[in-house]
Amino acid sequence: MSQSFFHDLMNPRSIAIVGANNNPSKMGTMHALSILKDGFTGKFFAIHPTETMVLGHPAYKSPLDLPEAPDLVMFVLPSKHLLPVFEAFGKIGTRFAIVITAGFKEAGEEGARLEEQLKDTAKQCGIRFVGPNCMGIVNRDVGLNTSVSPITGPGGPLSLISQSGTYVAQTVDYLQKRGIRLGKAVSLGNEADINIIDVLEYMGEDPGTKAISMYIESVRDVGRFLDVARKITPKKPIVAQYIGGSEAGGRAGLSHTGSMAGKDYLYDGLFRQAGIMRVFSVEDLYGIGWALATQPRIRGNRIAIITNSGGPGSAIADTLDALGCKVPPFSEGLQAKIKPLIPPHAPCGNPVDLTFALDMKVMTETIPDLVLESGEVDGVIMHGAMSTGFLGAAFPHLSALMPGVTYEDMVKGTIRDLGATVRVPFKHNMPMTVSAFFDRCDQYTETYEDHNVPVFDSPEKAARAMAAMVAYQHIQEREAEAPVLKLRPADTAVRILNEAAGRSQKALDEFSAKQLLSAYGIPVSRERLARTPEEALAAASAIGFPLVVKACDPEILHKTEQGLVHLNIKDADALTKAYNAIQDAVKKSDGRPVAVLIGEMVRGEREFLAGVTWDAQFGHCLAFGVGGIFTEAFNDIRYRVAPVSEPEARAMIRDIKHPKLLSAFRKMPAVNTNALSKILAILSLLPTLHPEIREIDINPLIISGADPVAVDALVILA
Amino acid sequence: MSQSFFHDLMNPRSIAIVGANNNPSKMGTMHALSILKDGFTGKFFAIHPTETMVLGHPAYKSPLDLPEAPDLVMFVLPSKHLLPVFEAFGKIGTRFAIVITAGFKEAGEEGARLEEQLKDTAKQCGIRFVGPNCMGIVNRDVGLNTSVSPITGPGGPLSLISQSGTYVAQTVDYLQKRGIRLGKAVSLGNEADINIIDVLEYMGEDPGTKAISMYIESVRDVGRFLDVARKITPKKPIVAQYIGGSEAGGRAGLSHTGSMAGKDYLYDGLFRQAGIMRVFSVEDLYGIGWALATQPRIRGNRIAIITNSGGPGSAIADTLDALGCKVPPFSEGLQAKIKPLIPPHAPCGNPVDLTFALDMKVMTETIPDLVLESGEVDGVIMHGAMSTGFLGAAFPHLSALMPGVTYEDMVKGTIRDLGATVRVPFKHNMPMTVSAFFDRCDQYTETYEDHNVPVFDSPEKAARAMAAMVAYQHIQEREAEAPVLKLRPADTAVRILNEAAGRSQKALDEFSAKQLLSAYGIPVSRERLARTPEEALAAASAIGFPLVVKACDPEILHKTEQGLVHLNIKDADALTKAYNAIQDAVKKSDGRPVAVLIGEMVRGEREFLAGVTWDAQFGHCLAFGVGGIFTEAFNDIRYRVAPVSEPEARAMIRDIKHPKLLSAFRKMPAVNTNALSKILAILSLLPTLHPEIREIDINPLIISGADPVAVDALVILA
Repeated sequence: MSQSFFHDLMNPRSIAIVGANNNPSKMGTMHALSILKDGFTGKFFAIHPTETMVLGHPAYKSPLDLPEAPDLVMFVLPSKHLLPVFEAFGKIGTRFAIVITAGFKEAGEEGARLEEQLKDTAKQCGIRFVGPNCMGIVNRDVGLNTSVSPITGPGGPLSLISQSGTYVAQTVDYLQKRGIRLGKAVSLGNEADINIIDVLEYMGEDPGTKAISMYIESVRDVGRFLDVARKITPKKPIVAQYIGGSEAGGRAGLSHTGSMAGKDYLYDGLFRQAGIMRVFSVEDLYGIGWALATQPRIRGNRIAIITNSGGPGSAIADTLDALGCKVPPFSEGLQAKIKPLIPPHAPCGNPVDLTFALDMKVMTETIPDLVLESGEVDGVIMHGAMSTGFLGAAFPHLSALMPGVTYEDMVKGTIRDLGATVRVPFKHNMPMTVSAFFDRCDQYTETYEDHNVPVFDSPEKAARAMAAMVAYQHIQEREAEAPVLKLRPADTAVRILNEAAGRSQKALDEFSAKQLLSAYGIPVSRERLARTPEEALAAASAIGFPLVVKACDPEILHKTEQGLVHLNIKDADALTKAYNAIQDAVKKSDGRPVAVLIGEMVRGEREFLAGVTWDAQFGHCLAFGVGGIFTEAFNDIRYRVAPVSEPEARAMIRDIKHPKLLSAFRKMPAVNTNALSKILAILSLLPTLHPEIREIDINPLIISGADPVAVDALVILA
Repeated sequence: MSQSFFHDLMNPRSIAIVGANNNPSKMGTMHALSILKDGFTGKFFAIHPTETMVLGHPAYKSPLDLPEAPDLVMFVLPSKHLLPVFEAFGKIGTRFAIVITAGFKEAGEEGARLEEQLKDTAKQCGIRFVGPNCMGIVNRDVGLNTSVSPITGPGGPLSLISQSGTYVAQTVDYLQKRGIRLGKAVSLGNEADINIIDVLEYMGEDPGTKAISMYIESVRDVGRFLDVARKITPKKPIVAQYIGGSEAGGRAGLSHTGSMAGKDYLYDGLFRQAGIMRVFSVEDLYGIGWALATQPRIRGNRIAIITNSGGPGSAIADTLDALGCKVPPFSEGLQAKIKPLIPPHAPCGNPVDLTFALDMKVMTETIPDLVLESGEVDGVIMHGAMSTGFLGAAFPHLSALMPGVTYEDMVKGTIRDLGATVRVPFKHNMPMTVSAFFDRCDQYTETYEDHNVPVFDSPEKAARAMAAMVAYQHIQEREAEAPVLKLRPADTAVRILNEAAGRSQKALDEFSAKQLLSAYGIPVSRERLARTPEEALAAASAIGFPLVVKACDPEILHKTEQGLVHLNIKDADALTKAYNAIQDAVKKSDGRPVAVLIGEMVRGEREFLAGVTWDAQFGHCLAFGVGGIFTEAFNDIRYRVAPVSEPEARAMIRDIKHPKLLSAFRKMPAVNTNALSKILAILSLLPTLHPEIREIDINPLIISGADPVAVDALVILA
């Protein structure tokens, strides 16, 4: 695997900072202190116009005075002073920079101009940079912390990529108190040069990163993002929170990162397509990410619950059930092994509920070992392990009975070696999550957290994290990627589009649209065009009653609403009436009769839609979902960035909110999803084959028997 | 309002405890210490067989030795010793008890027998009691804490009723660290006497309780629960978590509370009917409950966001949007007032993003005042107020630059009087929630929490709590309760049911079922029964083609699956064919022809279902939702405990997951929801009018034009 250029930026041997001094209230100083005090062992240089020493290190007036070119330079000085210094670093040979400084694109037109100048300067002097308007980077492998907040201790296997600086710089205390250790973190800022995809590519390659959490407000190069993410997710989980999909959220995002937020449903489709697990809160971004980063991969969805309290045990069971996991009753053999370890009448059939038993070794080692050795489950959730936290809470009362005994004295007997306890998941190579109402004040919570066993402050969260592991297993088990279909432009399609272009049409008429689709093998309803009542009758005898009769004209887009669709026409008489009714309703400007489409009545209760939409940011996207007249009412449509392969289309189909519509029920056979996915794969390629095509909308796509048939189609031209 | 008997139990003037001694490791002792040390000022007595002093108070060998009858006695002694002591307390005149002791119904048959004895004893000696197998009660109004965990400080306006002892006794530290103060709490245990509804009734009346949180595993008397809760929710919010709906959750719950868990969808309907807000985690049970208890009632859904960080501001906006709240752009006038207070280019249009501005007074007082005075919003969410928490996190670095300066020295200048800050929501009488990544280590978080402004550890949670307030406003604005319809048994219905009973039928045939419904004014499709081809033709000429032709027999329940339904019959010829096909397919044991139903083809694209189900715990429940052949695929059905009034039925209809099906779209008019709710109100009464009716199932209930028509119906007899 080729090593990303970003690796060098994350692993500098020397760093210079511009904008730090000896005043502790200055941001630059705080960034510098993080570099100096949090474990970085490389060289440190400060640039300062007047100070000779900064934070105990000699300061230099100009980059040109430096004894050597630092690998990385960090800028915290005001934007108006930035460019000359930046350029000077380029001259001495520095290759990487972090621009903390704000006041660029996010600050209006003048800032945007300055950002363009910065980009030009950087390109000219060969510097790749993060920012501007960012909060720095973290790489605990080399003790590096360039943010304003102190980070101590080693990193962990979770890495963060964030389009909000807050989530890198302002949550250090929050994370520390939850035992979550980021190994690497990058605040992206305006992405004037290095962007979210560059960093994602690096994190994907980084061996220390076992899971990636991403806070996303906008992805500019959707195609490359998809390529890069799709390569990572089979091997390494990516968790993402996308924010900015609401009008107000976009308004807020727009103003502060200087980029454009997109449509929520398109991001949702992008993440599904890439195998990225979407979360909807920063808590999950960190917490689910941490669980995925630290725990062995789960191999199934059968979960054991061990608790000493019924309510939380039931809550875990209900939550798992709602998320598609199983809490299988234990075999009699396994129950017989557990029974002697817990009080009589205490449940041992999964959940195991120790009730008032307080032997923590039995609860946290003996029983988990039995359960995980049994082969009956794939992971375990523990609630209620506690010692010092509980005693600490009780101490104010108990101390009255033990004069002279301190809290430390009291807990001495309770504190035990938890080495075996925290090894449980790793020994069995199965994931474990812990639910505890005591935080790091308790020895169990603290020790679990410090040894990479994730602890959540509620039973439901511990269950949701376990379910996320099962969800990731499903991502890993996805059908292998396949190339998209190889199609050549069909002659019929080229002819239809050329003719439409010749007439400056904005859309194809329905008949032509279906002819075009049919040219690529997409099944469409049998139909003919008629321009006289006689032609209509001839068409009827070729197709056979019952028939549907519709006006067919590229300028008539909403036929049903205008009463220009006649369904279930049974005989010649009715056909003639329908034909005439349409001619009466539509008066063409040139006086000629409107074309009338005579088509077979396709029978089928299940109506879907399939199409290709176009978005300025996402380009062409494939859409599939519940169609027919209830399209809006059910709002069950999924999107994918076009084009898609057949396996991808199959996954997309199964991904709708009401997948039962696809299975066999009542007297209907299961939907032929192979035929359906082929249609979707073809559709997704048409805008590439024919750049004239802007959007395609097949609705309804009726399931006739088991097979999809396009019954109405619209092709909008670019 | 009559005062609940439970008030006296919650406000004892004297308490005795049986099972406490001077050993700090005994549960009884811990309970006793809570009574003695957490503020209770009433009298305290201990009963002990050998000790003369318990925890510094004289101990008595027997209740009979006590100087007076205590108002309340608490039992923590083993179950086998309980009854005689219990009886003795009855003798001396004690009227209330809490039985902490476990080993009753939850512990198998023998325990269940013991519990029956306990109930008998209590009844005989006139003692009302909580438990057994509970964790005690809390009433901070009188400094009372009978749980094992120390609780200090005053209570708050949130009260908890819990069917899990854990949530009363094991979360004290958890709650304290989140600034949530329970005013009252009751752990119910096995509910051998006092049950969840008794306590709910009390909490509803209690003036200090501004919101009620309930952890529920089973409601035994569903009807009374509904009556009591429905009276409370217009005035006081109730938040409930129901657990036990999954098979494993029920399995766990069953074993530890000794009661039967019910079906999740029925509880869901019960909560909606009662106006109870359902939550799905204990975190929300506490957190949403706390926000509702502390904040002024919201009057609309327009929310202001004030932040100093873009990411969290956008996250709040997106979350609000997803939950149906508005984040309206501020007027130019309001923006003009805010603009001078924040950095140039910082967004002020809602969200207000102060970016790097750190003037906390402006952020937490000046701007909120402007925004809440404006009349443009109904509530405000704040992210990023901080002082000592941030400095504490930064101190390890900064201290290097300030030798001799302690953390306390450093923060001295930062700490300011937050009196005006924490008064903001109350001054404007509008709700506020706060999002902060610093916990009570920060002066803002601590002071907000201590003054009843709820602080959440993530932006999304602060937004969800605000949305919950809007949801509660909708509950308060519900259509006023109305009496159920007054119906008398219809003669036709009585006759049909008597005839069916005479023939020992298990169900009515379709024709009779619809006749019965029709007798109550429920619109059904026009139809006749035919037993000869001639009768069929006569029926056809009365009704008119097209027709539907079906077998009609009380023993044939799945006609469609057996091919006994012929749709869209157009003429006499087709009718005769269909009639004969049905006779060929069904061979009655008595050789007589099967009755054939000849009915009009009701046209309509929208198919619903309406019915009445029966459940051992819930009795008859009304069901309404998406019907037709896609019933299972869309799984969009709501339930209510029967009977329901018309306003309730209207609310139920709007409550489906896909309410857009009810509105006008394409060429279809809006559904006549008054007709629909009348049908539902009538249906819900039928099992009361006719106890022979066990279940009713109308599916499809087709919307023809705007009006519902029952097209197929099944009545199952008890």
